Amino acid sequence: MADELTIERDAPNGDEFPPLRDENDNLSAAFMDELVAAIEAQDAGRARALTADVHEADVGAILEQLDPDQRPALIQLLGDAFDFTALTELDETTRVEILEELPPETVAEGMRELDSDDAVYILEDLDKEDRDEILAQIPPVERLALNRSLDYPEESAGRRMQTDFIAVAPFWTVGQTIDYMRDAQDLPESFHEIFVVDPAFHILGTVSLDRLLRAKRPVKVSDLVNEARHLIHATDDQEAAARLFQRYNLISAAVVDESDRLVGVLTIDDIVDVIQQEADEDIKRLGGVGDEEVSDRVWSIARSRFPWLFINLMTALAASFVIGLFQGELQKMVALAVLMPIVASQGGNAGTQTMTVAVRALAMRELGPHNVLRVVGRELVVGIMNGFIFAAIVGAMAVYRFGVADLGFVIAAAMMINLIAAALGGILIPLGLNRLKVDPAIASSAFVTTITDIVGFFSFLGFAALWFGKM
Amino acid sequence: MADELTIERDAPNGDEFPPLRDENDNLSAAFMDELVAAIEAQDAGRARALTADVHEADVGAILEQLDPDQRPALIQLLGDAFDFTALTELDETTRVEILEELPPETVAEGMRELDSDDAVYILEDLDKEDRDEILAQIPPVERLALNRSLDYPEESAGRRMQTDFIAVAPFWTVGQTIDYMRDAQDLPESFHEIFVVDPAFHILGTVSLDRLLRAKRPVKVSDLVNEARHLIHATDDQEAAARLFQRYNLISAAVVDESDRLVGVLTIDDIVDVIQQEADEDIKRLGGVGDEEVSDRVWSIARSRFPWLFINLMTALAASFVIGLFQGELQKMVALAVLMPIVASQGGNAGTQTMTVAVRALAMRELGPHNVLRVVGRELVVGIMNGFIFAAIVGAMAVYRFGVADLGFVIAAAMMINLIAAALGGILIPLGLNRLKVDPAIASSAFVTTITDIVGFFSFLGFAALWFGKM
Repeated sequence: MADELTIERDAPNGDEFPPLRDENDNLSAAFMDELVAAIEAQDAGRARALTADVHEADVGAILEQLDPDQRPALIQLLGDAFDFTALTELDETTRVEILEELPPETVAEGMRELDSDDAVYILEDLDKEDRDEILAQIPPVERLALNRSLDYPEESAGRRMQTDFIAVAPFWTVGQTIDYMRDAQDLPESFHEIFVVDPAFHILGTVSLDRLLRAKRPVKVSDLVNEARHLIHATDDQEAAARLFQRYNLISAAVVDESDRLVGVLTIDDIVDVIQQEADEDIKRLGGVGDEEVSDRVWSIARSRFPWLFINLMTALAASFVIGLFQGELQKMVALAVLMPIVASQGGNAGTQTMTVAVRALAMRELGPHNVLRVVGRELVVGIMNGFIFAAIVGAMAVYRFGVADLGFVIAAAMMINLIAAALGGILIPLGLNRLKVDPAIASSAFVTTITDIVGFFSFLGFAALWFGKM
Repeated sequence: MADELTIERDAPNGDEFPPLRDENDNLSAAFMDELVAAIEAQDAGRARALTADVHEADVGAILEQLDPDQRPALIQLLGDAFDFTALTELDETTRVEILEELPPETVAEGMRELDSDDAVYILEDLDKEDRDEILAQIPPVERLALNRSLDYPEESAGRRMQTDFIAVAPFWTVGQTIDYMRDAQDLPESFHEIFVVDPAFHILGTVSLDRLLRAKRPVKVSDLVNEARHLIHATDDQEAAARLFQRYNLISAAVVDESDRLVGVLTIDDIVDVIQQEADEDIKRLGGVGDEEVSDRVWSIARSRFPWLFINLMTALAASFVIGLFQGELQKMVALAVLMPIVASQGGNAGTQTMTVAVRALAMRELGPHNVLRVVGRELVVGIMNGFIFAAIVGAMAVYRFGVADLGFVIAAAMMINLIAAALGGILIPLGLNRLKVDPAIASSAFVTTITDIVGFFSFLGFAALWFGKM
């Protein structure tokens, strides 16, 4: 697909540009080098020519990969030619850094050309002072609409909705509706359905554009209307809205206020970003990193990773404390020290497996009251099965390596116990956190490995103490 | 939002149904219990009444949560009332199990009402024998189209595309086009743009429905056409197609064959599923589980998790081997055994953090040739910074706990080394795997923890051997 992009970019002028993306769909080194040279030479003409036919989403990707200082420099060089929509494609930290560098008048100017949802998306991450400074430069009517969206809670549907839409009365005909659309000035940039409302703007239903197109002009809109099955409240969480879109294959959906009046429309392109964001969040939380992005600065990365490492240190210290309880046994039999990490490590891995599936299933609402018992039971059985197999393997290996049959029994028993603990911990911890309304992705990992480390070391060294102590 | 669904389901008949979803957006226990009772009583009337107004996506979710034996039973009970589209919402293993249970005639019958992309989606997972048995019962024209899609590689755009679309000549007027759409019989169920083609079906561009609606009847289609910037080849990977949709906020895109002739259209609803799938795959691969789903059976889960646990066992054995090299030191100083897991564990965690960010950035094409050096350098600096901090913390703790100052220096030095190894391993391993065209999500985890375990134990015990051996 890189081909089309290249062709398209080369076409408009005779200049030989390097291709924007390479064969792996990455921004090409040649293009980036030329652009960086233009920025460093303050060559506005060259920078504009290079980016003239680049889609705003790609401009966003370019900004993300530039050095932090080069980002506002490029925007200043491009001037009018910079489409602020590109900023919606950036990670939050990058966007805020850029906006703080640019003069508020430039930002306000750029914002005026944006759709309302994009403008809100850009404004919402700024602190109140910067935001007010920009809003002050925007005409009152638009400012009012932006402020209304900003009044909804963060990550709500109200923040993501587009406030321009087409609403008609049920007694209008197809012809009237089409004529109205032909004449109207401030229509949204693109739309996929129109809304049918009563005089108080309560929504009666929707008509998709393909149905409207296929109907004859005298037909009444009320004859084409689809019940608006999937209403979204402006205060609903964007994640819940995304689930509706995904589950019912929606392209757009009406957003209503607390009195069920139509206030906006959510479209799939915004929702795709939400879906991506939420999946990204899950992955990063499971991996023990916060809202970190690959474009973040060293300092913010080190700071955001520190708490997770610190929690892990506490876990490791707890495990170390458990080991410390058995110093006598370790002294007597050094083989225990050699073998003990195996039990803990297998448990950690098995627990992570169960937890990963559970966290995703919870996020997708695939794990609910009806099947929860079955899933817990199944994990227990899987834990026992894998427990048996790995107990046999490590038991045999321990005997082979150290020539002590009893050591084989001890490690086998500990492995069995720890894989069962891992299975139960891996499923019950995410379920418990979910019940407590804590995102299971964020904390499960630390709890699960704490359990498998402690159970792993305690059962292995404890069994050893009992077994060899007896003799 | 559960409210609207409830209202809508209660409306059509007077019967008092339990709500489909509870306040957490899970399928409600009450609804599922009633449905299971109906299935067990073989009460077709009750089963149909319960599911009459349930969206096919929710029917899919219901099937997923039923016991494996109840799934085909419900479909048989519903008979004609079962919409096979529901099967597209299922996990692959569940879908295949159900299809193998149902008589081929029932499946073929149900398939005929599906859009071509949905039919392909259902057929592609079956083995050739079952698939041919079903295809044999489908009329030749439809069979031909399905076979053509099935000829494209797995996970390609050709498999996901819809083969019904509207294509017109550039010299047609808006009026002609609208009249054509009003009269045409076999239009796709819903569509968002029409395609403009030359007589050989080479694509000239697209016209969105809202542009068509807003134009006057005598206007030529060629005056409204948008250049089709984002062509997708039928053999392109679905993941690449999904990136295009996501990057450029597309709603639909033309799919062309090797001669650039229009053969189908990809729409955002299919792409949303691809985006979700790919994110899911990354999460699960990072967590060391394969294509496992929460609805899978015990046996297939135990089998799919085994290889990952086995690989981890090899890692743990390698770490254990390293420890075994220092049995003499461990014997002399048992404190080493107590402290050694801390160094390895912190390294594993720090490595996983770096790796998580790197894997996601690679998948999203945010980590390319232009910024790779900067990112690697940054990880190194973060590793050194966190290395310093945690070296100081654990060094102080070790001295406090065991009263041996030298032990503090040894563990501090080992921690420093291991956090640097973690940073480099966490970024270089995903980059290396990506270079080798191996999905970094699938293998990075095992490699990174192998490195941090081995470096962790070796550096700590090795420094101890050097330091205390000298004295």
